[in-house]
Amino acid sequence: MKPDNGNDTITALSTPEGKGAIGVIRMSGPDAIRITCKLLPSLDLSIAKSHTLHFGTVKDGMEIVDEAVVGLFRSPSSFTGEDVVEISCHGSHFIISKVMSLLIKYGARTARPGEFTLRAFLNGKYDLTQAEAISDLIAAETEAAHQIAVKQMRGGFSGDLKNIRQKLIEYASLLELELDFGEEDVQFANRKELKEQLQDIISDINRLTDSFRLGNVMKRGVSAVIAGRPNAGKSTLLNALLNEQKAIVSDIPGTTRDAIESTLVIEGIAFRLTDTAGIRDTTDYLEKLGVEMTMQTIEQAHIVIYLWDAAEITTEEAERDIEKIGKNGNVKIIRVANKMDLKPIMGDTGDAIPVSAKKGEGIGKLKEQLKKMVLDLNYKEESTVVTNARHYEALVNANDFLKKGLEGLESNHSGELVSSDIRSALYYIGLITGEVTTDDLLANIFGRFCIGK
Amino acid sequence: MKPDNGNDTITALSTPEGKGAIGVIRMSGPDAIRITCKLLPSLDLSIAKSHTLHFGTVKDGMEIVDEAVVGLFRSPSSFTGEDVVEISCHGSHFIISKVMSLLIKYGARTARPGEFTLRAFLNGKYDLTQAEAISDLIAAETEAAHQIAVKQMRGGFSGDLKNIRQKLIEYASLLELELDFGEEDVQFANRKELKEQLQDIISDINRLTDSFRLGNVMKRGVSAVIAGRPNAGKSTLLNALLNEQKAIVSDIPGTTRDAIESTLVIEGIAFRLTDTAGIRDTTDYLEKLGVEMTMQTIEQAHIVIYLWDAAEITTEEAERDIEKIGKNGNVKIIRVANKMDLKPIMGDTGDAIPVSAKKGEGIGKLKEQLKKMVLDLNYKEESTVVTNARHYEALVNANDFLKKGLEGLESNHSGELVSSDIRSALYYIGLITGEVTTDDLLANIFGRFCIGK
Repeated sequence: MKPDNGNDTITALSTPEGKGAIGVIRMSGPDAIRITCKLLPSLDLSIAKSHTLHFGTVKDGMEIVDEAVVGLFRSPSSFTGEDVVEISCHGSHFIISKVMSLLIKYGARTARPGEFTLRAFLNGKYDLTQAEAISDLIAAETEAAHQIAVKQMRGGFSGDLKNIRQKLIEYASLLELELDFGEEDVQFANRKELKEQLQDIISDINRLTDSFRLGNVMKRGVSAVIAGRPNAGKSTLLNALLNEQKAIVSDIPGTTRDAIESTLVIEGIAFRLTDTAGIRDTTDYLEKLGVEMTMQTIEQAHIVIYLWDAAEITTEEAERDIEKIGKNGNVKIIRVANKMDLKPIMGDTGDAIPVSAKKGEGIGKLKEQLKKMVLDLNYKEESTVVTNARHYEALVNANDFLKKGLEGLESNHSGELVSSDIRSALYYIGLITGEVTTDDLLANIFGRFCIGK
Repeated sequence: MKPDNGNDTITALSTPEGKGAIGVIRMSGPDAIRITCKLLPSLDLSIAKSHTLHFGTVKDGMEIVDEAVVGLFRSPSSFTGEDVVEISCHGSHFIISKVMSLLIKYGARTARPGEFTLRAFLNGKYDLTQAEAISDLIAAETEAAHQIAVKQMRGGFSGDLKNIRQKLIEYASLLELELDFGEEDVQFANRKELKEQLQDIISDINRLTDSFRLGNVMKRGVSAVIAGRPNAGKSTLLNALLNEQKAIVSDIPGTTRDAIESTLVIEGIAFRLTDTAGIRDTTDYLEKLGVEMTMQTIEQAHIVIYLWDAAEITTEEAERDIEKIGKNGNVKIIRVANKMDLKPIMGDTGDAIPVSAKKGEGIGKLKEQLKKMVLDLNYKEESTVVTNARHYEALVNANDFLKKGLEGLESNHSGELVSSDIRSALYYIGLITGEVTTDDLLANIFGRFCIGK
């Protein structure tokens, strides 16, 4: 997708497909108003004010297609910044296809995914992070993902970056000013202060990149794998977790896999629970090929709920299993001793959470523990959280250059070199908000949007 | 459903469920504007004009839920005649649920299916036939069904009925006026003229009731059954009919059955094609229980395409089968001689359409014939077509009373009796447009609507 110059008029159905009372067709561009007047010949919108609604009859020649309400937004007071018209017609597939084909006949073209938002960006209505947040907002399925997207759409993240950017531009400019007086060996930028300030910015960016782990969790949910030997009661535990009240249970299609995962929402955070095949009960089970898939799932998980049958195996045996799991990546492990209702159990269960999955006992404690592990990621309501891998990557790159600049200052490199590092960092920060863009970048970002947005 | 007094404020999602760029939540009632201002505290709509659009922030306490555009329609210039607000928010399930729950918290209640249109009717915005047409319009899947619904929504049918109604009221009044002068034996209504006029109205209503067969066809499509002995090539013919270009092929869930029917659209008319089990090739096959289901399907069909293998059975044999089918109801039969590409064939195929389903030969002719059978129903673009069983029934009842009145005139019955018959006819006509209503009738009509309309 090449961002075009906005000289043409685009249109798309902005409401979901399917039968409904109404469907809304959006149109944006210089010809939006003229085309609307052809569609509804009874309307003369040429002198109509922005932000007004008009009732009219959609006609195709002599034939009446529908009665519709037209919402008019004049440039620049619209979502895209261009003239925008929203046509609410009756929500039948037949009518919507007909209206769309008439709009195209009169000179509009079908909008590509995200093209309305792309135009909003190109016209300076939103920066890139805000535009991306709109897509996140539509996709948000939990309170946490929703809140983070709203904050980003309203410019929270952009504000943080703007501050950093302004400071860096100032430092680079000061250093570059020295070059003009190169012969005279002046230093406008106090090196000690500059070091401290760069150090502060590096810390700020570190805080942002650190938040990415949490951001990912809030946006995509926490992947929690229930692992353990066969017959440990894993599926029973899964059911017990999902059936407990106050938790929303839903099946959402996985984004990276075709499998359907069970989702448990605890206080706005989605936990994607995966029940795994039992890890086989042999001394050298980890070597066996058949367990590899379970181990891979564990490696990709945030949390492993390791469950054992406390009436069958000892805590020591369980710990040996856990140790092997722990070797794979930096997953967090929650120990759960199951079947505590059976007597006798195999000795002390240590700091494991005692449960009876069958009787639903101890499940509340397990949920508390799940929640706590997310809160441990240090989420503070007011602070910015990075949720987007593209932003994360650019921040890491920016910080690498800032660290290089800081090293340069410490080694008394020339202001020219340090300024060049700062400019490189600025380039990466500019990529995030869209001060710097490429066609590929825009195509990549807006191509993921839904049509009509 | 009891039609309420409209004192409360109702709300519903008016766009289809699912993810989309936007979702539109509609609210109607005396509190619609007040509730909207609670939802978007940044907006003050108290003095905003009707037919205006407002951008604002949806908040739940301190928490920002979304940015939304609010369309305002003030009573009486709205769809329902009440104050109406349409809130366009981002189309995520999460946001829409949240906004709906806030609206309910602030005093709205969830609208029942069709309740917005019910209010439009109760407030005199539409008569009943127009309100019913809105539901038909949303359901329309073909050009013919769509055109007929548009015409009805815009009052075409209502206009016809209004004319009839006015004339009948005039006649009844004249007859009733005579009663006041009972002693004097005056006749304000010329009996000869009155007979002629009643006869004209009876003809008009007959024309309307006659159109119901066509109306049904245009609205619901023509049910066409492909019947014949096993191996006559029925499924091949079905495929040949469906694959031919220029015809839209679609699978629509049947309304009266769970089965999925294949639909073929020829010039705006939907043909619901059903492939049946082969009628067994025995002399007394009609008696066999196993064929009963096929025969039932045939009985309910408008058209039977009777297909035989011209290389295997003679036209006389085929005619014997057809005779038995023809006994069942007044279905129209199209004779098709298949496998005409094979030689030799069993003699003259009479007036059957010769085809080779396998080679796709003769299929065009069969389609022409299908189309012709619909056109034979005498559809004229400008004339009103009755599509609704409720209207049909009321028209038949009205005409029964008018015929009784006419008979009374011919038998020189008293003006009082004739007038009473005319009043009864008026009652039934009033039921159609809604001058006469009952709670049950309204519940029955609007309960079939989708939510949000």
